[in-house]
Amino acid sequence: MPDISVQRIERDLLALSKFGYNEADKGIYRQGFSDVDMEARRWVMNLMEELGMETRMDGAGNVIGRYGPKDKPAVMVGSHLDTVPAGGLFDGALGVMAGIECVRAIKENDIELDYPIEIVGTAEEEGRFGGMLGAQALAGCLTMDWLEGAKDANGVLLKEAMAAHGMNHLDALHAYRNRENLRAFIELHVEQGPVLEAKEKTIGVVDGISGVFKWMVRLIGKADHAGTAPMDMRSDAFLGLADFAHEIQRIIDEEGTDRSRITIGHVALKPGFPHTVPGEVDFTIVGRDLDGEVMKGLANACRRVLSSIARKHRLMFEYEQMSWLEPQYCSGKVTDLIEANTKKRGYSYMRMPSGAGHDVQFLARVTDAGLIFVPSVKGVSHAPDEWTHWVDVERGANVLLDCVIDLAKE
Amino acid sequence: MPDISVQRIERDLLALSKFGYNEADKGIYRQGFSDVDMEARRWVMNLMEELGMETRMDGAGNVIGRYGPKDKPAVMVGSHLDTVPAGGLFDGALGVMAGIECVRAIKENDIELDYPIEIVGTAEEEGRFGGMLGAQALAGCLTMDWLEGAKDANGVLLKEAMAAHGMNHLDALHAYRNRENLRAFIELHVEQGPVLEAKEKTIGVVDGISGVFKWMVRLIGKADHAGTAPMDMRSDAFLGLADFAHEIQRIIDEEGTDRSRITIGHVALKPGFPHTVPGEVDFTIVGRDLDGEVMKGLANACRRVLSSIARKHRLMFEYEQMSWLEPQYCSGKVTDLIEANTKKRGYSYMRMPSGAGHDVQFLARVTDAGLIFVPSVKGVSHAPDEWTHWVDVERGANVLLDCVIDLAKE
Repeated sequence: MPDISVQRIERDLLALSKFGYNEADKGIYRQGFSDVDMEARRWVMNLMEELGMETRMDGAGNVIGRYGPKDKPAVMVGSHLDTVPAGGLFDGALGVMAGIECVRAIKENDIELDYPIEIVGTAEEEGRFGGMLGAQALAGCLTMDWLEGAKDANGVLLKEAMAAHGMNHLDALHAYRNRENLRAFIELHVEQGPVLEAKEKTIGVVDGISGVFKWMVRLIGKADHAGTAPMDMRSDAFLGLADFAHEIQRIIDEEGTDRSRITIGHVALKPGFPHTVPGEVDFTIVGRDLDGEVMKGLANACRRVLSSIARKHRLMFEYEQMSWLEPQYCSGKVTDLIEANTKKRGYSYMRMPSGAGHDVQFLARVTDAGLIFVPSVKGVSHAPDEWTHWVDVERGANVLLDCVIDLAKE
Repeated sequence: MPDISVQRIERDLLALSKFGYNEADKGIYRQGFSDVDMEARRWVMNLMEELGMETRMDGAGNVIGRYGPKDKPAVMVGSHLDTVPAGGLFDGALGVMAGIECVRAIKENDIELDYPIEIVGTAEEEGRFGGMLGAQALAGCLTMDWLEGAKDANGVLLKEAMAAHGMNHLDALHAYRNRENLRAFIELHVEQGPVLEAKEKTIGVVDGISGVFKWMVRLIGKADHAGTAPMDMRSDAFLGLADFAHEIQRIIDEEGTDRSRITIGHVALKPGFPHTVPGEVDFTIVGRDLDGEVMKGLANACRRVLSSIARKHRLMFEYEQMSWLEPQYCSGKVTDLIEANTKKRGYSYMRMPSGAGHDVQFLARVTDAGLIFVPSVKGVSHAPDEWTHWVDVERGANVLLDCVIDLAKE
């Protein structure tokens, strides 16, 4: 059984982390289509070329290195190369560097493959321009219209950011792949959550990406003087929200699963003065589950509970569904393969959903796709102190290697 | 039985309302020590002089008109002349104009008084400079230190604002009155709340001004990705707040009275993003009751409930008591007199606390003081659409007249 070398993954990850590293906060600033992002992509292409891979950057900025037989559908392995502002060492980068290490191990061990491997470092996964550009391009999920208008938070157009590097944004529409030229996709990523560490498991075998809905809710009551308005004559919008939040666990117990999440992350009271009964409150509800029917059950329950609470507190209740993304299951074939190889290696593991989005959710639309998680220390991610123990990186990369070899054989 | 003329009160109130009237929003902008505020004060002094009263402006800007015997303690009658920005017609002004009308009625009816009446239009009650300047000056509750440093929200010093009208802020310390020269104080004011209207009562016989405490509370949990953090591994600060808010009615049922109020008017979540579990929440608790012991009971219950909820949600809990103002009872003698005269007139009434602050709360420290409420339509105040029906103004002013005559006789 061939093994990867975690020392080489460590070396490559540390080298890659220099692109965008900020001494002040120790964070990595490698946002999509920034200068350092493009430098990092060229560096990764060099690394792949040194291994004898044939490299290219596609029209979306994805860097791809190909190894093995020509003219056959490829097993694609990878993740994203960009980071959030002040991001960490592993998020995305791990999947690319581990993929390259798999090719090294396959080469060193002279393993014969029936199908080629393509290592991919996807572009702009973290959503600077509001999407998951590289993976969406590969899966054919982009439109000309969106490409023309996409902007970052500072108002910079995607097409301007791409043009600054000599790229034409419409070339992203040439990056589309499908079953004719893709045999499978597999991604290794850090969990970015606390579950594997808490459950003392090394490998997360990811069943799929949870669907997510986002509501903007407004409860409208009446602003009153907090001294002169008796409790029983108020229409206190905040107390309505509090009663709803108090019911969230019951809603999940009754309608959800242990994979369900409901979060109130944003709350704005009007007028928001200590001595005034809040006449109005705007808040967000973000709900998630791995099952689309369960999501509907959660959403319906939220609506029923809000209606009933609004009546009780004499409030008006409005909501707008800002988004509804269906869950995306991984391929059962790839997921089972991950589980089998994890067992063969004797590593502890658990099946789990991913609550965060990943490249795999788009690739799963065009090929058999799977996702391997390794533990995040304290669940921290999108922060400079993101960490994954090297021993877990080693095990995750070994499972990846085994799966890649299996997928690249008849 | 002499009666006041509501037509004359209406005429005077409408004339006074021109000082600071804003055509755009129909609100009155007559903040303390503004030019229009000082013009209004001179106009009110003229009105009093036309009735043969001896007038003066004291060192705090209170305008005082005296009627009746010299060298005896006075029955002081009045309220404030300043308004909040975009304020209404009645708040404060009613008490002054009704007081002047009482003198008119007494004069017309040739009623002999044993003690003089002083009509007062107090200065800066609405707290532009953070206090209740005129009433505090009369009650001897000011300090040199405070007068030197008091500032408005725009950073203008009280002493600068007073100097602009040729006044010396330290002269406010000469305005002090006491039982040697004050026999009683009585104020007519609009309720600024919904109770009288809802209970279909004309007169509110005010037992006292509720005490009030204000806390800044912080619950500290852990910010997590709303997708990757399972519900049972979160330390969601907002859910802690929601559970507390859900218990407010129980706290009042167990520890409070029907005069108790607990309000959460300000809430700030950190980081406040829809897709992030709130790691921290800052909020205010404002509690009120007419009984100091009940206030302590409410405050202790808030602390116990917050501690218990913090443990349950794995949160840290900090709070700071920003202020604690003890309740101020009105004089039983004056309150009973208001009730007796209301009954004699055959008007409906109820005893009630005032949840808002009023000049009377300071005057009650230095003399027998009482407060009469008349209904506010829909409880609206501090807004251009503040309204009180003229019939209620008439009845309130008649009760005021009866009380003033009784108080000014042996």
